[in-house]
Parts: sequence; structure tokens; C-alpha cells
Amino acid sequence: MSRSLNLAVIPGDGIGTEVVAEGLKVLDAVLAGADVKVGTTTYDLGAKRWHATGETLPDSVLEELRGHDAILLGAVGDPGVPSGVLERGLLLKLRFELDHYVNLRPSRLFPGVATPLANPGEVDFVVVREGTEGPYVGNGGALRVGTPHEIANEVSVNTAFGVERVVRDAFARAQARPRRKLTYVHKHNVLVHAGHLWRRTVERVGQEFPDVAVDYLHVDAATIFFVTDPARFDVIVTDNLFGDILTDLAAAITGGIGLAASGNVNPDRTAPSMFEPVHGSAPDIAGQGIADPTAAVLSVSMLLEHLGLTAEAARIVDAVAADLGERGTAKRGTAEVGDALAARVTA
Amino acid sequence: MSRSLNLAVIPGDGIGTEVVAEGLKVLDAVLAGADVKVGTTTYDLGAKRWHATGETLPDSVLEELRGHDAILLGAVGDPGVPSGVLERGLLLKLRFELDHYVNLRPSRLFPGVATPLANPGEVDFVVVREGTEGPYVGNGGALRVGTPHEIANEVSVNTAFGVERVVRDAFARAQARPRRKLTYVHKHNVLVHAGHLWRRTVERVGQEFPDVAVDYLHVDAATIFFVTDPARFDVIVTDNLFGDILTDLAAAITGGIGLAASGNVNPDRTAPSMFEPVHGSAPDIAGQGIADPTAAVLSVSMLLEHLGLTAEAARIVDAVAADLGERGTAKRGTAEVGDALAARVTA
Ligand SMILES: CC(C)[C@H](C(=O)O)[C@@H](O)C(=O)O
Ligand SMILES: CC(C)[C@H](C(=O)O)[C@@H](O)C(=O)O
Repeated sequence: MSRSLNLAVIPGDGIGTEVVAEGLKVLDAVLAGADVKVGTTTYDLGAKRWHATGETLPDSVLEELRGHDAILLGAVGDPGVPSGVLERGLLLKLRFELDHYVNLRPSRLFPGVATPLANPGEVDFVVVREGTEGPYVGNGGALRVGTPHEIANEVSVNTAFGVERVVRDAFARAQARPRRKLTYVHKHNVLVHAGHLWRRTVERVGQEFPDVAVDYLHVDAATIFFVTDPARFDVIVTDNLFGDILTDLAAAITGGIGLAASGNVNPDRTAPSMFEPVHGSAPDIAGQGIADPTAAVLSVSMLLEHLGLTAEAARIVDAVAADLGERGTAKRGTAEVGDALAARVTA
Repeated sequence: MSRSLNLAVIPGDGIGTEVVAEGLKVLDAVLAGADVKVGTTTYDLGAKRWHATGETLPDSVLEELRGHDAILLGAVGDPGVPSGVLERGLLLKLRFELDHYVNLRPSRLFPGVATPLANPGEVDFVVVREGTEGPYVGNGGALRVGTPHEIANEVSVNTAFGVERVVRDAFARAQARPRRKLTYVHKHNVLVHAGHLWRRTVERVGQEFPDVAVDYLHVDAATIFFVTDPARFDVIVTDNLFGDILTDLAAAITGGIGLAASGNVNPDRTAPSMFEPVHGSAPDIAGQGIADPTAAVLSVSMLLEHLGLTAEAARIVDAVAADLGERGTAKRGTAEVGDALAARVTA
């Protein structure tokens, strides 16, 4: 009995299209032996579409996307699009509309990979970043714009419902890992209302997971441990903005955003989840065939894992580990890396 | 003609009292030759006071503090005080009441100091963190607390007045430094209202400083450069929360919070400025005489600089640089370090 995967692909702009091509190449290769048929529909969303039509995410496209098993996204944006337009109108709109409340960002320092840290130790953690609340809700506004009396507010909205579901997801992930450790990160000594909601929620939900060890760090202190002792982390759960900041730092210490994959996950499967490299469209290196597609390939692995194809997902991670271990600091082209990974997952 | 300095001292709790003692020791030593009389008044604020009386910052004490030339603070807090009580009721209250809108945090990697980075380069930058606005205003609230319908909001408040004054201060500081570079950090692609106010303000105020080179980083991207290329930074200006996060990371890469000094500065001098190490009261090592007082001593240097005693301020920094260069990674006691620094500034 064959299975079929119905994927929506949003290559986007700049290096987005380049790395997605390699991701799909590796996807085809890893599924070559398996009895899985992959169908892909490509959607031209991003800066090019916006320049041409002024559209970011038409309702009809959003509805079509809902009909897929998962979404693979490259990266969107170019310097000609005003800041915030594609972020709010496309990326965040997808995360919010498709209820991607778990923004999953694994960080692993693969052997052979260069890190800015002198003594990183064994780094292998995952950040569970809340994806549908916090300061990302777009609940801000401004008065008297452009005058000396301007006031601009941004509201971080946090609900028991929203915090509890992401915290429970993080506990479950921690429980399934060998170290069973969960660190929650906030700033509850200053953001007392949101912070205390997070704290009470972690304490309450934690009672369902007595075998998971829990600790807390203020977000500022967390950044210290990211550089002095990142090996201490197993699963981290935190709010949308803190998660954004911490995962870029996490990427930096584990070889850079060229290697960092992410999943915008809807664990309840009421809508498709979306997988994307953490990096952006990098207009400065676009079109040269030099972008590292590893993050996109690892995002494909996360996508397969989410869809239950765990053996195939693991084969991709193993291939990446072996590839990084061998190539070390040698620079290779985008397609070259994709070819090498495709060959490894088939072998 | 002799000058007199009228200092308020808040040693606080834990290692706060220990490091402040060394700070004052070095202050006395550096002023021994100068014709400056120092008067100090000690205020017992912090966890001990709160446990005993329930008070954090009585109005009468606040009024007395206003009468001083500057405030030296150690650190406050112990595990018995609920999170937020001393932060909101004392530390932040002082910063807001005394209009400390420039939270100044220099980061310099002194020769001989251990850093977690493999190749830090020459790190010498200062973060100008806004101190009286942003998500720190305490403008949050919660509904239906403790129920499944709880909503907890935190409001980041940003005004043209507040952003402009700190941005102008940062430009002036950048202009006075050899590299004349200002990086402003925000997240204007997501926090569009506050972010665009920051952006427009930097652009407008920047016209008054045509010789200062300006660039922008999203806060997440900034953390990457803190570990991959911290030498690129000269002056950084950012909001209250981003500044909190970035300056702990900055401390971590330049030897840890045991070395990080800060000034809560009121540049208009309508109230005394307050100088404090970035570290906390560290109950785990308190009372053992092993806390590093260097951050407190450097805070004294910033205090002197603020009061116009620039030669004395520089002598302290030189003493710290020489001391760190010599002692390397050797552990020494709190008083031992204080004695060594006191000897150097007199010599
Ligand atoms: C592009 C931006 C909206 C996005 C975010 O802030 O979440 C990015 O930084 C990320 O981490 O995926
Ligand atoms: C203790 C806390 C309120 C404070 C802050 O968040 O500003 C501290 O972290 C700091 O950086 O001075």
C-alpha cells in the first residue's frame, strides 16, 4: 500500500529558491526506496509577488495551503520591501492562521563544524518557542506618529490556553529525550504578569511529568549559559520573542544559521505544519550558487519526522552529520552539498 | 579649593555588601591624593529590609537619595523574596523615579581575561540601554488569574521624547569615541510601531551627527555578531529589554558578570545617577569572601567619570586592566582584589 505526501512549497526569494531546490532533491532521494509518492505544489509568495501585485498572502492561497500535508518554505524578502510587510503579512500570518504554536528549533553541534566557542562541549538541545502569542501578536499601535508627542505601544498577549499547550508539548518532548530536562526561560522578575502565568503553568503541568527535571532562567542569564555552558541544555521552552532571540544565538554557537532548521508545528494537526530554515533570503549572496542548503535539508528532515516518516528523517540527519564531519571547513556550492546529501541518503 | 562628594551607598544583600566595601576602599585610595572630601550615607534597602519591615523603597528614603551627588549600589535580593518585589519596588523604581534614561554598560575584553570565545578579537564597546520605557514600564495586567481563561498582557510603551533623548545621548557618545560607530538594535520587522519610532528617530537625530556611521541589526541577529564578531561594535543603542538581554551576553563574552559595571545615568542631572555591578546578590557564594569585586570597582570608576573626576576614573580602569593582566585565571578573595586595586590606584 503506497502512501502519498501532498506538499506545498514556497521557495520565496533570494537563496530561498536555491536551498529549497536542494531540499526537494534530498527529499526525492530519501524517499526513492520507500513506497511514498510525493506531490508538490509551488506557490510564488514573497517579495517578487508583492512587488508585482501588492499581495502578501491572498485568502484563496491560504485556503489552498490548508489542503496540504505540510509546507516547505525557503526564505522571503528583499531590500525593496518595507520592513514588516512580508513578516506580518506572510510569515507571521501563516504561523498564526495555521496555529503553529510550537516553533521547534533544534540546535546540535555536529562534529567537524566550526563554532565561535572555545570549549562548547556536546551541544544538543531543542528550543520550543511559542509561536502564536507574546509580543508577536501584532497588538500594538501608535498615536501622534511623526510628532514630538508620538507614543508607540506593543502589547505582549499571553493566555493560559496558549501557554499551557506549548508548555505541555515541551514537557512531552523532554520526557521523550534521554536527559529529560526542561529549562523554561522568561523574565518573570520584570514582566510579572506574563512571567507569573508562565511560571504557574510550568509548575502545574510539570506535575504530569514527574520524571522531567525543570529549571528556570531569566532570559538575560540564559544568554550567558548559551556561551559558557550550552551543553547544559536539553529542552528549552520560552515565549515567542525570547525564543526568536535565543534561537539565533543557538544557531551561532552551533555553526551558524546556514545549518539551523525549524518547524512551525501545529501539534493538533488542525492545519499543515511549515518547515523552514532559520536564515533569511540573503540578497547579498543570492544567485551565486554558494548558499549552504543544509538548513533547508534539515528542515525537510523535520517535515518527514512530523509526518511519521521517522526512519527517513533520521537518514537525512545522519547524512548531514557525516557530510559535515567530512567536509569540515571546505566551502562547497549549493548544488554540490545537495548532491552529496542526496547521494548519502540513497546509499 | 576642595571639592566634596556626597554619596549614597546601598550595599544591599549577599555579595552586594562585600563588593561595595571594596569599591569604597578603591574610591578612598584613588581620591587620597586629590583634594576631594567624600561623605557617604549608607541605606539599608533590599531583601533584609523587606523581610524585616515589608518596605522596598519608602518615599522618605527616596527623597533623601535625591539629595546626593550619586548612588553606589551593590546588589539586592535573596531567594526568600518573591520574584518582582525588589525588582519593581526598588531597583526599577529608582531607575524610573530618578529618570535614569541612559543605562550605560561598557564591555571591554581586558588582556588576560578568559572568554568563552575562541577568537574574540579586540572587544571594546558600550551599550546605551534605554532605562525608563519599553516593556519595563510595568504597564501590564492580568485577567481571570489562575483560571483556564487567564490573559496576561505586558505593554511596551515607547515615546518620541523617551527614544529621542537616549538616541541623542548614544550618538554623542559615539561621536566622542575614535571609531564613531553606532549600531541600533530593535526588531522593527515584528514590533513595527515601536520599531519604526526607533528607526525614524535614529534617522532624524543622525542628521545632527553626520560623522557617526550608523547601522541597524535585528536583536536576534545582534546576538549572532556578539559571538562571531564582537569587535565590530562600538556604541550600541537599544531598548530596555533588548539592552538587558544583550548586556548579559556582552558580559559573558568579556569575562563574565563579575567584571561588568553599569551606570544608571540621568544625563540631565535632575537627579543623582546610580552605579552598580550588573551581577546580582549571588546568595550561593555570599559570605565566603570570594566574590569578585571588580565590577563594583569599575562601577565606582563610572561614577567618578560621571562626576567629572575623569583622571581618577581612568586610573581605576588602568588599575583593573593591569591587575587582570597579571592575575590571569588565578582565583583571589574579594578583599585581596580590592587591596590590590587600591594599592595600584594610589601608586
Ligand atoms: C523574519 C521574522 C519575522 C522571524 C521571527 O522573528 O520569527 C525570524 O527572525 C525567525 O526567527 O523566524
Ligand atoms: C534585576 C533586573 C530588574 C535587572 C534588569 O532586568 O534590568 C537586571 O537584570 C539588570 O540587568 O540590571
